[in-house]
Order: sequence, then structure tokens, then C-alpha cells
Amino acid sequence: MQIDLNADLGEGFGRWSLGDDDALLEVITSANVACGFHAGDPTIMRRVCRSAREKSVAVGAQFSYRDLAGFGRRPITMPAAELSADIVYQIGGLDACARAEGTRVSSVKPHGALNNVSAVDPDQAGAIVAAVIAVDAGLPILVLPGSELEQLARAAGLRTVPEAYPDRAYDEHGQLVSRALPDAVLHDVETITRRAVDLACSASVTSRDGSELSIRAESLCLHGDNPAAVAAARSIAGALRDRGVALTSFVDLLLTC
Amino acid sequence: MQIDLNADLGEGFGRWSLGDDDALLEVITSANVACGFHAGDPTIMRRVCRSAREKSVAVGAQFSYRDLAGFGRRPITMPAAELSADIVYQIGGLDACARAEGTRVSSVKPHGALNNVSAVDPDQAGAIVAAVIAVDAGLPILVLPGSELEQLARAAGLRTVPEAYPDRAYDEHGQLVSRALPDAVLHDVETITRRAVDLACSASVTSRDGSELSIRAESLCLHGDNPAAVAAARSIAGALRDRGVALTSFVDLLLTC
Amino acid sequence: MQIDLNADLGEGFGRWSLGDDDALLEVITSANVACGFHAGDPTIMRRVCRSAREKSVAVGAQFSYRDLAGFGRRPITMPAAELSADIVYQIGGLDACARAEGTRVSSVKPHGALNNVSAVDPDQAGAIVAAVIAVDAGLPILVLPGSELEQLARAAGLRTVPEAYPDRAYDEHGQLVSRALPDAVLHDVETITRRAVDLACSASVTSRDGSELSIRAESLCLHGDNPAAVAAARSIAGALRDRGVALTSFVDLLLTC
Amino acid sequence: MQIDLNADLGEGFGRWSLGDDDALLEVITSANVACGFHAGDPTIMRRVCRSAREKSVAVGAQFSYRDLAGFGRRPITMPAAELSADIVYQIGGLDACARAEGTRVSSVKPHGALNNVSAVDPDQAGAIVAAVIAVDAGLPILVLPGSELEQLARAAGLRTVPEAYPDRAYDEHGQLVSRALPDAVLHDVETITRRAVDLACSASVTSRDGSELSIRAESLCLHGDNPAAVAAARSIAGALRDRGVALTSFVDLLLTC
Repeated sequence: MQIDLNADLGEGFGRWSLGDDDALLEVITSANVACGFHAGDPTIMRRVCRSAREKSVAVGAQFSYRDLAGFGRRPITMPAAELSADIVYQIGGLDACARAEGTRVSSVKPHGALNNVSAVDPDQAGAIVAAVIAVDAGLPILVLPGSELEQLARAAGLRTVPEAYPDRAYDEHGQLVSRALPDAVLHDVETITRRAVDLACSASVTSRDGSELSIRAESLCLHGDNPAAVAAARSIAGALRDRGVALTSFVDLLLTC
Repeated sequence: MQIDLNADLGEGFGRWSLGDDDALLEVITSANVACGFHAGDPTIMRRVCRSAREKSVAVGAQFSYRDLAGFGRRPITMPAAELSADIVYQIGGLDACARAEGTRVSSVKPHGALNNVSAVDPDQAGAIVAAVIAVDAGLPILVLPGSELEQLARAAGLRTVPEAYPDRAYDEHGQLVSRALPDAVLHDVETITRRAVDLACSASVTSRDGSELSIRAESLCLHGDNPAAVAAARSIAGALRDRGVALTSFVDLLLTC
Repeated sequence: MQIDLNADLGEGFGRWSLGDDDALLEVITSANVACGFHAGDPTIMRRVCRSAREKSVAVGAQFSYRDLAGFGRRPITMPAAELSADIVYQIGGLDACARAEGTRVSSVKPHGALNNVSAVDPDQAGAIVAAVIAVDAGLPILVLPGSELEQLARAAGLRTVPEAYPDRAYDEHGQLVSRALPDAVLHDVETITRRAVDLACSASVTSRDGSELSIRAESLCLHGDNPAAVAAARSIAGALRDRGVALTSFVDLLLTC
Repeated sequence: MQIDLNADLGEGFGRWSLGDDDALLEVITSANVACGFHAGDPTIMRRVCRSAREKSVAVGAQFSYRDLAGFGRRPITMPAAELSADIVYQIGGLDACARAEGTRVSSVKPHGALNNVSAVDPDQAGAIVAAVIAVDAGLPILVLPGSELEQLARAAGLRTVPEAYPDRAYDEHGQLVSRALPDAVLHDVETITRRAVDLACSASVTSRDGSELSIRAESLCLHGDNPAAVAAARSIAGALRDRGVALTSFVDLLLTC
């Protein structure tokens, strides 16, 4: 048994930092690096990519709406062609930073509100798929299981990697609880670890109202801006190791297939 | 005899447009496309790259300080490492847009104030050289003849392409007259054409005070935001053709060497 | 009989200009000046306010979502408190520019997508109302007749000024046709003038499908970025004068009440 | 004896926070609040202003170059008229936020690189003075003693408040040591406190090379993004109290004059 552990990194901007990228890079197996539209400037991108390369962590491009003020967590209605071009640019910008540091973008993922909207909106999901194909149809894409994005990406021949969130609450329909609500984000390391183990070992997680949800995930995601992120990552890694689950990037899996 | 005719394109942003990119692409042989930091959004980048590909015009990356409000014409003092990372990101972002449209970035050029500052400041010139090497040491770079950037780029093994500006006034030392001064930008098509012919055929141009300057240029640059740009480009192309000077991109020259 | 003729002005940014503000200021009776979030930088704001003062045109604050790339025409879902703070800031920033030029902000209006969303979304409409009250409860607000914003603003005791758009198509329900559709924006000066006269003299306008809509407006709005704006403004002014309708700012009306 | 203790606050942006504004507001007597161009969004501005009002701390506007990516610490060469308009807008925007929270802007101060440049550049210093006069010639301005800004502001009739930095190293000429150099920023609470006491009680401070500098300050400034800021503020307040020096805002002083 094996699973990927990913986290959102490089989410500072200029003078502002967020999360402990280096500590997370010691534990995780793939890094979703912010591409400058919701967070991340090129100096940060190069620093995170350099550190990821040194620690043999795969670099993914976490693209977003153009929304620094809202950290990419504000849904934006916009033409699909413009969204698609924005995504192409972001992946290219990060990839150049990654290559300058001896690595490369090897997966992609929509950030924040774009991830949520593209889960249900075929227009924006299609914009993402078109962008990835325009850049490199071989790039795997992290998706919410059952999302519109997953369906369209698969239909277009992209490799999809379903992911789950041990540090986020799910409602009874398997949807992420909105961040506007209390308890949307979990901070207790033990709880997060138990959910990660459930997701990795039994493909299930407990919803907000106590029911068991079935969620098949090839990657577990931790939010880098969660203060509990580093402790949770270490705890999850230990707990999975104890159960004989190997932490391995899905990119490595892909390359060895 | 042959020379390249380049222009700065893709310098709109969102709702705002600037210059007539399509008309210029009918005449010029290489396009310096804005990369989003002083102008240009990814939708515009893709549109210009698509049009350039259709018209067989080479695409160059015109990177800048991060300065939308000042159109990249404000000198900014900043750490070389940050400037270098910003340039890597911009080239990568535009290149992804270019590749999505079937072409690629095949040269680079600093825009506006960055061009002026890197002509005399070894720190910023070095940041540019480091960025180009980090992305692709095979990319030719357009430079002001005699500039600090030209020297450092050559010393680092980059191919430098000296360019001259038929639509800008030079002072008696061969420096561009500051845009803060009147008459820094020329608008008379006949004057611009005569200067272009002088530059192409006799490697010289008349300075503001009437003296003859010796300027060896492999490329002539027109500013896309000059209202006279399209008329000047057509007039220059005709005048050079009449004198047996072929308009050819320096990138083609390079590839055929 | 009298009516106000307003236009959206100051919608350039840095190097980019849009519309002919000075020509419009010769004709219109109130100016909705962009506040920097969708367009307009402080230099432009001061220039437009100076010109408006010289021509005795009332200055209004046209606030927006923070969205330079989308020109404020992208609906954005965001917390009401954040939206409200953004609006307070924009009004204050423009008002300082106006006062520096001897005039002041004497009305307000939501721009673009914010105008459309606040017409139907009580959360965003409420954010606008709260912002206006926080700045100055005496500021009249331009509204779409029948909108959620109109209702909430009135309920809160604000003076609402219903406006209509002679240069935009309406659907059979009296809603503005989306800009994503062809023919949403009218460009024929005669058509725009006829509609303006109908709105001013008979409180009606023809919808896209030919039916007559009843729209009571105290102000007619022209979009400054419509290439026909200046010609339409002049034509409307002449046509209304011929029919004995005085063009007068609603702010003057208010002050003289 | 009395002196003002000020700190730079509200220097987060969107998702990013910086410093502990509320803890500092318990101790300081005036707050320099970021106005959105180097840091600070309107939501943060309102929150800081509300907290400042509750704690009876005077609110000042800390305006900056437009430079979120560089936190306003990058010198920018730009036309004085544009800089002046940017400053007018920033003061107005913050003032509206302050008034919405029951307080107002009662002083101003240039941030970061603008503070440094205006200390020696009459063009930019003049732009600042013109902006303050355009907004409210009664606003006191915090200045570096001996700076070009101090001279021009005084000559224009503005009230200048000289300030000193107990947490920054000075060179032997009384200039602040550049942040590009190590030891430019002091972090040891005891050292910062001793320097604050020297500045308040004997108008002197020790330079980097050990010489005594004579600096007459009416306000002591702590940088809110210094991790030692809160501890230093508390320590300084205690040490000054022990020596019979009252901490009082210069604004109160002014009002009671």
C-alpha cells in the first residue's frame, strides 16, 4: 500500500510568509507550489523549488484566479478563454522557476475557489483541462473525486489523481464544508491523523454529521497555511508508516508504471 | 545587406489596448511581447503569439520591472536575485503562452526603465544575464550597443543583438533622450524612416544636437505605443527594400549560421 | 422637465487611456469617476476631477470589485464586510483627489459586475449600503430601478437615483443583456439618442425583443468606453434640448430641494 | 518630559498578517497605518483603526510607493505629480476607513524607501509636501531629522515631528544603515530599550561604529514587523515611565498647544 502526501507551499508574497515550507518538505512527497496569482512571487517560487529538489519532493503547479487580495478563495466568474490563458501563464512561469533550480513542474492543481468552482462548473473545469493540454497533456492533475473537473479531465485523456483533505470537514454529501462556516478547517493533530489513516487504509472519512463517506484518494492534501500543518504531516507520516503504508509521490508511481 | 525590424507588442492589459499589433505584425520581423509585469495579460499574450505564428514573425520576451501603474518606465532599485527571479518567471509565462499557440520565445529584451538602468548598472544587468542563462543560454538578447548589459551578456557567452531606435532621439553621447523631456519620441514618419535607413545602411544616426553618431545595429526597434508606429514600419520596410536591404529576423540569421 | 446625463469617466490606468473624458465633460451633467479598483489611478482621478470642476460637472465615485485585469466586469463572491471596506476606501481615495482639485464626491455608483450582482444579491447590496452610510449617508446613489440595491438603499434612508442605459440592450424583463452576448452594447448614435429621448420623455424603452419597457430614470448613463459615447452624448443633449428637457445634475436638484 | 511612541501597523494584506497590532496598540501612543500601496487592505485598515480608537491611539497615514511585492522598500523613480497624487489617494482612502470607525487620520508619514529617498531627494520630498497640503495642511508629518523632507515641509508651513528609530542602526553620519546590510535592524530588547531611553532623555544614540550621535526626536518609532516589537514597546514604556518620561502622542500635544 502506498499514498502521496501533498501540501500547498510557497504561499507567501514579498515580505509576507505563510506556513513552514521547509519543515513540510521534510515530510511530504509532493508540493503544490503557488504560481503568483493568489500567492507566491518568483523569488519564493525559486526558493521552494530549490528546497523541493534538494529534498527530492515533486513540484506541482497550483494555479489560481488572479486574486492576491482574496488569496484565491473568492469565486470569480470569467470567460473560459481568459481563465485558460491565465493558467497556461502560471504553469509556464512556475516551470521556468523550477527548471532554473534543477527540477520541473510534474503535476498541476487548481487552488482554492477555482478548485471548488471547477468541481461543479463545466465551463471553468473545461478551461483548466484546455490549459493543461495546451501546456503538456502528460501532466497529472489533482482533482476532487467525483468532480466535474475529474470527469472532463479524464474524458480528455489527462491522468487524474483524486485527493482528499484530512484537515478539512466534509458534509454528508462528500462536499467540503465552506470556509465561511466554523469548523470547516480542522486543527487537532490527532483528529487529522486519524482521518488521514482512514482515507489511506480504508478509503473513508467521517463527515461533519458523523456518517461514513467513501472517498478513494491517491493523495492526501494538507493546507500549508494551517498552523497544525507541520505537526500533522509528521504525525500522518508516522502513523502511515506504522501501518505499512508507503508515502510515495503519484508522479513517481506514474513514472515507474 | 539585411536587418531585423522589431516592435514592442502585446502592451495592452485587460480592457485596455495599445497600438495595432496585427498591423505591425504584417511588417516587422520580430515581436517583443510584453510578459505581464508592465503590460500584457495572458489572453493578450496568446493572441499576439498566435498572430505572430500565423505571420511567421519571431516571438521575443520583453520582460520588465513589476510596474503596471508605471508601464515599466519607472526605475526601481531592488535586489538582483529578486529581479532575476521575476525575469525567469516572465519568460516562462510568455513561453508557455507561445507554445500553446504553436510558437516559442526565441529572444529576450528588457523593457523600458529596466533597459535603461541595465545599460549602466552592472547589478541589474547581471540579474538579467543570470535569468537568461537560467532559462535558456541559447536565447539571443537585444541590447543597447555599448551598454553594461551588452558587455556582461557577451562575457557570459550569450548572443547579443545590438538594436537602435529610429523613433527615439539620441543625445550627443549616443544615449537615448529621457522620455521626461520633449522631443524624446519622434512622430514624423519621414524622419523616422530616414533615420532607419541611415542606421541600416550606414550604421549612423543624427543626434539631437545635429552631430552624427555611429551606431551598429542588427535590429531596428519601433515602439508599438507610438501612434506613428504602423505608418513608420511600412515606410521603413519600403525604403529599405528600395535600397536592397532585406528585412530578416536575427533569429533566422542565427538558425542559419 | 429635466434629467441628468452621466457617464463613466477616468477609466484609463497608467499608460492606458479609455474614452474621451474631456469631450464628454463638455456635455454630461455628472461624472462617475473610477476609483482605482477596476480602472483609474490617482493621477487620472485628479485630472478628471480638475476638468469636471472647471466644467461644473458633479463628481461621483464609481467603486468596483478589486479587478484591474477584468475591468470590474467579473462577478466576485466575497465576504460583505470586505467588500464594504473596499468601497469605503475607494470613495475616500477619490474624494481626497477631488478635494485636492477643488471639488468633492457628491454621489456614488457601483461599477460593472458589482452593479449587476448588487441588483439581485442582498448580501452585496447590503455591503454597498453599509459602506455609503459609513462614509456619508447624505450621498445619493445611482441604482438600477427595481434592484435589490435600490430597495435596501431606500430602506436605509439613502437617496436613490434610478438610472437607465440608452446604450445598452434590455431584455423583455427589463434586465440588461449580458455583455457576453452580441448586441448587448449599442453603437448607433441615432438609436441611442432615440432611446434616451424615450427614457427622458416617456419613461420607456424598447427591449431587445421589441416590447415596450417602462423605466423611470432620473439619470441617463453612457459608457465612456463606448466609441460612440461622445457623439451620442452630443446628440442626446441636442435632442433633449429640442424637446425642452433640461440636462441638470440630480445633485443640483437635491441641493436646491 | 514627554515623548511619542509610534509603530507601523496594519501591514498585513489579505490572507497575510504581520506583527501583533493589538498588542502594540496597548502600549504605543500613535499608529502609522499602512494605506494599501505597500501593505494593508481596507479590511485591515478598518480593523486597526477600530482598535486604535478603542485604545485611544492616534491614527496616522503611512503612505508608500505602489509596491506590494517589495513592501515599499524599493526606491522608485517616478514623476513628482504622480507620486503626489498617489499619496493624496492613500491618505483619503485610509481616512475614510478611519472615519467609518469613529476616528480620523491625524498625522502622516512616508514609509520605507519613500522615507529614505525623500530624505535626500527634493523632488520626491516636494511631492510629499504638496500632497499633504492638498489634503490638509494641518496634518503633522513625521520626518527624519535633518532630512530634505523636514526642510521642505517646514518651509511650506507644515508641522514636522522628528522621529528616531531605536530598533535601527545609524551610521556615523546619522543615516539609517541600509536594510541590505546585516545588523541594520536590532532585535535585542535591552539594546533597543537603552537606545530609546537615550533618545528620549538625552537626545542621543550610539552609531554603528560607537560614536555618539545627537538626534532630537519628538517620536520614537518601532517597526511592527520586527519580531521584537511588542516586547521592545513594553520595555521602552516601562523604562521611560521609571525615568518620569510621559508617553504622549504628539497629536495630543499639538491639540493642547
